Amino acid sequence: MVAVLKPGTKKQQIDNLSVWFKSRGLDVHISEGKTHTIIGLIGDTSKIDVELLEAIDIIESVKGISDPFKSANRKFHPDDTVVEIGDIKIGGGNFQFIAGPCSVESPEQILGIAKRVKAAGAALLRGGAFKPRTSPYDFQGLQADGIDLLLEAKAQTGMPIVSEIMNMNHLPLFEHIDIVQVGARNMQNFDLLKELGKTKKPVLLKRGLANTLKELLMSAEYIMAGGNSNVVLCERGIRTFETYTRNTLDLSAIPMLHELTHLPVVIDPSHATGMAKLVRPMALAAAAAGADGLMVEVHNDPANALCDGAQSLTPDQFDEVAAKVKAIIEVLKQ
Amino acid sequence: MVAVLKPGTKKQQIDNLSVWFKSRGLDVHISEGKTHTIIGLIGDTSKIDVELLEAIDIIESVKGISDPFKSANRKFHPDDTVVEIGDIKIGGGNFQFIAGPCSVESPEQILGIAKRVKAAGAALLRGGAFKPRTSPYDFQGLQADGIDLLLEAKAQTGMPIVSEIMNMNHLPLFEHIDIVQVGARNMQNFDLLKELGKTKKPVLLKRGLANTLKELLMSAEYIMAGGNSNVVLCERGIRTFETYTRNTLDLSAIPMLHELTHLPVVIDPSHATGMAKLVRPMALAAAAAGADGLMVEVHNDPANALCDGAQSLTPDQFDEVAAKVKAIIEVLKQ
Amino acid sequence: MVAVLKPGTKKQQIDNLSVWFKSRGLDVHISEGKTHTIIGLIGDTSKIDVELLEAIDIIESVKGISDPFKSANRKFHPDDTVVEIGDIKIGGGNFQFIAGPCSVESPEQILGIAKRVKAAGAALLRGGAFKPRTSPYDFQGLQADGIDLLLEAKAQTGMPIVSEIMNMNHLPLFEHIDIVQVGARNMQNFDLLKELGKTKKPVLLKRGLANTLKELLMSAEYIMAGGNSNVVLCERGIRTFETYTRNTLDLSAIPMLHELTHLPVVIDPSHATGMAKLVRPMALAAAAAGADGLMVEVHNDPANALCDGAQSLTPDQFDEVAAKVKAIIEVLKQ
Amino acid sequence: MVAVLKPGTKKQQIDNLSVWFKSRGLDVHISEGKTHTIIGLIGDTSKIDVELLEAIDIIESVKGISDPFKSANRKFHPDDTVVEIGDIKIGGGNFQFIAGPCSVESPEQILGIAKRVKAAGAALLRGGAFKPRTSPYDFQGLQADGIDLLLEAKAQTGMPIVSEIMNMNHLPLFEHIDIVQVGARNMQNFDLLKELGKTKKPVLLKRGLANTLKELLMSAEYIMAGGNSNVVLCERGIRTFETYTRNTLDLSAIPMLHELTHLPVVIDPSHATGMAKLVRPMALAAAAAGADGLMVEVHNDPANALCDGAQSLTPDQFDEVAAKVKAIIEVLKQ
Repeated sequence: MVAVLKPGTKKQQIDNLSVWFKSRGLDVHISEGKTHTIIGLIGDTSKIDVELLEAIDIIESVKGISDPFKSANRKFHPDDTVVEIGDIKIGGGNFQFIAGPCSVESPEQILGIAKRVKAAGAALLRGGAFKPRTSPYDFQGLQADGIDLLLEAKAQTGMPIVSEIMNMNHLPLFEHIDIVQVGARNMQNFDLLKELGKTKKPVLLKRGLANTLKELLMSAEYIMAGGNSNVVLCERGIRTFETYTRNTLDLSAIPMLHELTHLPVVIDPSHATGMAKLVRPMALAAAAAGADGLMVEVHNDPANALCDGAQSLTPDQFDEVAAKVKAIIEVLKQ
Repeated sequence: MVAVLKPGTKKQQIDNLSVWFKSRGLDVHISEGKTHTIIGLIGDTSKIDVELLEAIDIIESVKGISDPFKSANRKFHPDDTVVEIGDIKIGGGNFQFIAGPCSVESPEQILGIAKRVKAAGAALLRGGAFKPRTSPYDFQGLQADGIDLLLEAKAQTGMPIVSEIMNMNHLPLFEHIDIVQVGARNMQNFDLLKELGKTKKPVLLKRGLANTLKELLMSAEYIMAGGNSNVVLCERGIRTFETYTRNTLDLSAIPMLHELTHLPVVIDPSHATGMAKLVRPMALAAAAAGADGLMVEVHNDPANALCDGAQSLTPDQFDEVAAKVKAIIEVLKQ
Repeated sequence: MVAVLKPGTKKQQIDNLSVWFKSRGLDVHISEGKTHTIIGLIGDTSKIDVELLEAIDIIESVKGISDPFKSANRKFHPDDTVVEIGDIKIGGGNFQFIAGPCSVESPEQILGIAKRVKAAGAALLRGGAFKPRTSPYDFQGLQADGIDLLLEAKAQTGMPIVSEIMNMNHLPLFEHIDIVQVGARNMQNFDLLKELGKTKKPVLLKRGLANTLKELLMSAEYIMAGGNSNVVLCERGIRTFETYTRNTLDLSAIPMLHELTHLPVVIDPSHATGMAKLVRPMALAAAAAGADGLMVEVHNDPANALCDGAQSLTPDQFDEVAAKVKAIIEVLKQ
Repeated sequence: MVAVLKPGTKKQQIDNLSVWFKSRGLDVHISEGKTHTIIGLIGDTSKIDVELLEAIDIIESVKGISDPFKSANRKFHPDDTVVEIGDIKIGGGNFQFIAGPCSVESPEQILGIAKRVKAAGAALLRGGAFKPRTSPYDFQGLQADGIDLLLEAKAQTGMPIVSEIMNMNHLPLFEHIDIVQVGARNMQNFDLLKELGKTKKPVLLKRGLANTLKELLMSAEYIMAGGNSNVVLCERGIRTFETYTRNTLDLSAIPMLHELTHLPVVIDPSHATGMAKLVRPMALAAAAAGADGLMVEVHNDPANALCDGAQSLTPDQFDEVAAKVKAIIEVLKQ
């Protein structure tokens, strides 16, 4: 940690500050410049509150040096994490499609879509049972019944299931769900993250709508600090001033996260754009940028879907996207 | 609701669409223009998914007309809501100070501050027992012990208590807390909001860091739809590109919310700015803009506070701010 | 245009408003609903100020229906615009690389890089002579001398030149520059745009750092309204809250712009990310998303570049990126 | 300037880097920590490109210590700048109202409004002759004729004039205009700023819609570096995700700028909110937060204004706002 002192700070004040830092177990290195004096602090600075330091009269600014995330940090864990669900692997060179409807609606719907996306190469089936909706008057999902329908589809197709949890008290319901999704609006629901950290269940953690990558990694850290390192990060679009698209898909998050962390990175082009016709180009772009997987909404009858039909591909469209994505992954490997 | 059709839409297509709308119980009014045809839909359009409509081939855009919030809407409830905690009133011309430390630290600390801010005119005592922190390695609050200390301070001073809840399972702990605060990061934790809607407890609902006023009102609606109309809205700064201040305090939210809703609006200048020296001018500005109250962090020893000391006023500074705020409120009344 | 009236508006008021609209040459269609009355306005509404209408007592909201851009609108010009510089074509299925250094520094530098990027397949040479810098104390470019060096490189390699203009009085200097670039900070320098509209010179128009696609298209419209339809749009990253990357490259702008407009869309991954190591994945992703071209910074000695070296590829790195991009374009064509 | 080296950097590499820094005339202080080594650089670091340093292999991050603005910096110029137009002073405890219509429309309009706002206490008259409009098809102002009408109103009322310039070639037209306004969209039109820096004319510099305070100060620096220190800063609302208001007025900019710079700070509540009914509370709040002045749109007939009528006060409303603002300023002085 580095503290820059204000011009005109007196020697006595610097000495007092040094004593205070040393009393906290830190080594202190002082560099006196023409206008500014810089104090380098060596040791465990994790207990020092940067904002508090900046509030001290003689300090102009403070810069933390170490990344605040440890378990998720590639510096300390250079090898890619591979999250395994049975014999399906995500990360470390293993690319997977997660596909399915926004909401589970009926046994026929979820099973029909499952079979189609499996045939096109999807390894995992997604489907929402609990739905976070901005309005209390909107459809909130089939809830526990939806979970049952997903498990039935899993039984019949063998596909592992990804579904969103909104409430830690529902964890028992998710016992046989393979990957528990934490939605964008719950990315900083820290009590939920802590609870998931106590399990070993794979977690797909979505980036919040206005959160930075560092905040995403700190939320992953909440899960990992509890002992659960099966975390898959998911970029699903961030809020910008653009209004033609629902959100702005940040594909530079893929290479940037790959540098910062060893965790796999999956892209959700459906929620990001909000429009089926943009899903294809964004899926291809995500693959080209090095994503470890794609989570795509597919619906057999988008025009009559209970929720978010506007952004769902038909099964036929998904077939075509999946084929192109595979071809692009081949180009990258060459 | 109004749907605008794409240029070149054929009469047969318009007729089919009209039949579909009518089958959903809506009256249909068609206006044919030179390039565009407009369809006005009259009736209960709350079940119509705007994004789904926009996905239909022949529809160019759709505009909802009614506000999606009902219980919180001033149109249907023109009189100001006054939230009452014993004989303390917030809203409808009643201005209150909520003051206290970011975190409860010790019996002496919370009681000492409580007495000082009460003397300066604060009606309610705030203090954090459960602290949402970006990092799992940061101080997470005294938790249940902190609640006990707050209740002890309430017993000794008679001041009602405001404290933040992070987890619906903690509700029993908050039985004697007077106003339950929902933090910015939980503004769209819909399951928590629903649970609070089942109680009659006053809720101070903070605007999320990147949320719109409409989203804030929809979250209030989640609480009110459950039957609890004791909601106080709180603006605490939004995320912008500015970096000198921690967040940007949106004071235009005060008159705007007063027009949209009958709920009281309280401002938190401490978290918004992150700097004690900005709290005073922003507190005065909030009063001048018509706020129904101020929530201000006060600490007897900011430099040694466990959390967010940089943004806390000393009790002496709070005295001075409170006096000026009262003078400004007098100017507004003249 | 559609105007929604406030609940409780009286018939007399509606009649008065109708007369006022009719006096402006508009046809008026009235749909009375249970709570709201909707007025559809047919005719030339381009002279009606939406915000002014919304300020009228009895009007709740107004919705414009037509896009405000005409010349740039694909609805009225369904075929792709192909911008031609000699026999080099951009758009309509023609993909081009524009490559070169951020700043022109010396005859050896610009000529050396030109030869290398030409060999790797770049059709156009970019180089900055006039540099917009946030600080008046930073290097401002070689200015007129830089233009001379670019023209010398053009003479020796035959590559057409792209360079940025900051000031309409410099237009004579750009007489032999092939594509005049308008930078992000000048996207709404309307007087400069009007001046460029009076020429026939191809313009590469960069999206502003916090501008929407609609605003980008309106700026293109300023150029086109003057009679110059040789406009190439360029996405170069928008400002978001993310700090690991300099800006956030909005690749969904590619398919979205292709739907809205017939103008070609080029991507600049260098400025967007600010880091050489992110240029490769973003360049590949842009190609996969359907870009009509890439503008990439290449420098023979990035560590000693006068400006923005951190984001420049070496010529060797550019060779490899160009090869992969071509392979991805082949995948798209299959 | 402080550079943090990556973990594992070898002594030889550190030595090489030190030599390189020293060759640029800097003193080098090295602090070796357990995981990171920190290099403090003392001397004139203004020629060192931070981003370039960060691109060096062994460097993890770099922190500039000095503010990049010099002439505008309060550290080096502790006394408030007072901008004087005849005997009217702005800054240093002198508060002024600048009032008038968005656009000059006719001799009667501008003169009528001038007389009314003068009577209510406005010291300066504002009026737009050249109007930056997003669309080329919108009213662009009366241009040179508008300047003539402003000068006529000045002749008759004695009020100094504030008007916006969009193009450096128009400077001769502004010879008798007292304060030249640079609009938000031109805040980084660096060539225009340089040209204004060559004059001694007072400049009202508006913050761009998505610009930081540091960028605003750097743009002021462009003017001041040329020798013109008569700069008034103006906050007029920044772009956020909020849609009920046109922009979000950042009132914390007032105390923050007062700390960073000695230049006066004026607030424009009209453009920020876009709604007349929000102008009053925001004007009062701006005064309470310590603004040095207010720029307010006033129109005798807002409903028929050619431009931005929706945000204009009537002269009667302005009278009332001005009286309350004065009362709040009195409270601050007590």
